[in-house]
Amino acid sequence: MLQKPIGLFDSGVGGLTVVSEIIRQLPNEDVVYFGDVGRYPYGPRSKDIILQFTRQDVAFLREQDVKFIVAACNTASAVALETVAGENDIEMLGVINPGARAAAETTQNGKIGIIGTHATITSDSYPKAIHHIDSNIKVFSLACPLFVPLAEEGYQDKEASYLIAQDYLKILKENGIDTLVLGCTHYPLLKKLIQDVMGDGVTLIDSATATAREVKDHLEQKGLLRDTNPDPDYKFYVSDVPDKFAPVAERFLGRRVDNIIRVDITKY
Amino acid sequence: MLQKPIGLFDSGVGGLTVVSEIIRQLPNEDVVYFGDVGRYPYGPRSKDIILQFTRQDVAFLREQDVKFIVAACNTASAVALETVAGENDIEMLGVINPGARAAAETTQNGKIGIIGTHATITSDSYPKAIHHIDSNIKVFSLACPLFVPLAEEGYQDKEASYLIAQDYLKILKENGIDTLVLGCTHYPLLKKLIQDVMGDGVTLIDSATATAREVKDHLEQKGLLRDTNPDPDYKFYVSDVPDKFAPVAERFLGRRVDNIIRVDITKY
Repeated sequence: MLQKPIGLFDSGVGGLTVVSEIIRQLPNEDVVYFGDVGRYPYGPRSKDIILQFTRQDVAFLREQDVKFIVAACNTASAVALETVAGENDIEMLGVINPGARAAAETTQNGKIGIIGTHATITSDSYPKAIHHIDSNIKVFSLACPLFVPLAEEGYQDKEASYLIAQDYLKILKENGIDTLVLGCTHYPLLKKLIQDVMGDGVTLIDSATATAREVKDHLEQKGLLRDTNPDPDYKFYVSDVPDKFAPVAERFLGRRVDNIIRVDITKY
Repeated sequence: MLQKPIGLFDSGVGGLTVVSEIIRQLPNEDVVYFGDVGRYPYGPRSKDIILQFTRQDVAFLREQDVKFIVAACNTASAVALETVAGENDIEMLGVINPGARAAAETTQNGKIGIIGTHATITSDSYPKAIHHIDSNIKVFSLACPLFVPLAEEGYQDKEASYLIAQDYLKILKENGIDTLVLGCTHYPLLKKLIQDVMGDGVTLIDSATATAREVKDHLEQKGLLRDTNPDPDYKFYVSDVPDKFAPVAERFLGRRVDNIIRVDITKY
């Protein structure tokens, strides 16, 4: 069991920010990643479809014989994880609870903003998770659907992106939040832009770091954390042709990525 | 055969611009539309995946017993239609050839621009279709991936969209085109913006009108055009929950839309 890899999945490439933190914080673990690039994005779809896709992603990772599953996707974590975890006898962690805990620990004035996809915001998962920790915290949630395509098209530094960010974030600024959760794994690519618009008084929470820390704690408690592994193995599976995935994965991970295998996820 | 409906499919809602023109130009025809909203967008995906999705879309429409199939989606038309038409014994038309013919008839200076998704532009289908008509025409093709999310998020009139359009279209202006094909069924929603950026000297071609005209000609030639139908029937099928589709469909079609049925397209 100890020797088995950690499995992560995401609707596409965004979850690689979590993989990157797992590799940094848990350097002796093998990792299997599934990126559903053939069916991304999850964010604008219904609960039904997200549930169906998440079940298939988890079934695929289980077949890879992983010891622990991380939903490295805010939308899947927010909308489907609880249900799918209840249907499976393997432990799973999403990015919502770690992000919520990090935000609740960070806020000084008790006002937290959440930005994410339509599905994540509609699910109300972040406010529920935060209120579970401290029911007095005020939470302001906002869908920012254009942030994903802007990040993917390399529009991080453009004037147009700045205008769109100002449009979206104005209402959060007006409400005086001091902490903002980047509730979508793509948003860290726009971190500088979002920080510029929000100003230095607002702390941005990127759930990748918090999630990797909680995965580590969890595996440690269960005696499942490897303390040696001279040559850790990283495998990447995708649901469309791998050629577009490779350069993006290398940019996210800062290392050469060789093992990218295509699978037909609809068969799971 | 004559009484059977016309079938149309698209990756989502964009193809409704073609449905709207079919209803206007062929008022006695019944129509069945399939919108693959559960798996849109097609534009950034590989040829392989687009081929798989198109095969399923066509199989579903065939089961609806239609007399003619229209690929009301530029990406599917550009990447997959020729192959899928070769595998089926029903007649099909895409939006590429009608758009190409309309552009070739329109240009005065022999310089045509094409804008579309990554997959449409990579397929080179528009230049091939135009050169088949007149090999002397110069064609300038450009992917504008942010136009779809901007159109969907209602960013038609925003300064940010204007800046992005200027960014994208600059190179087409510099090359002195006098005709621009809107090679994606979403782009007509940004028509005013694109016309503003390109200037009055450039004629925009929206394939919906040209495609409906060619469908009419074709059915007429085959003796399959109905000349009376007091109560034409319009059915809409989608691959995700229908509630988001209804208001968009009503906006596109300018009429109340009742018959929206969800299907599991992955079973086809």
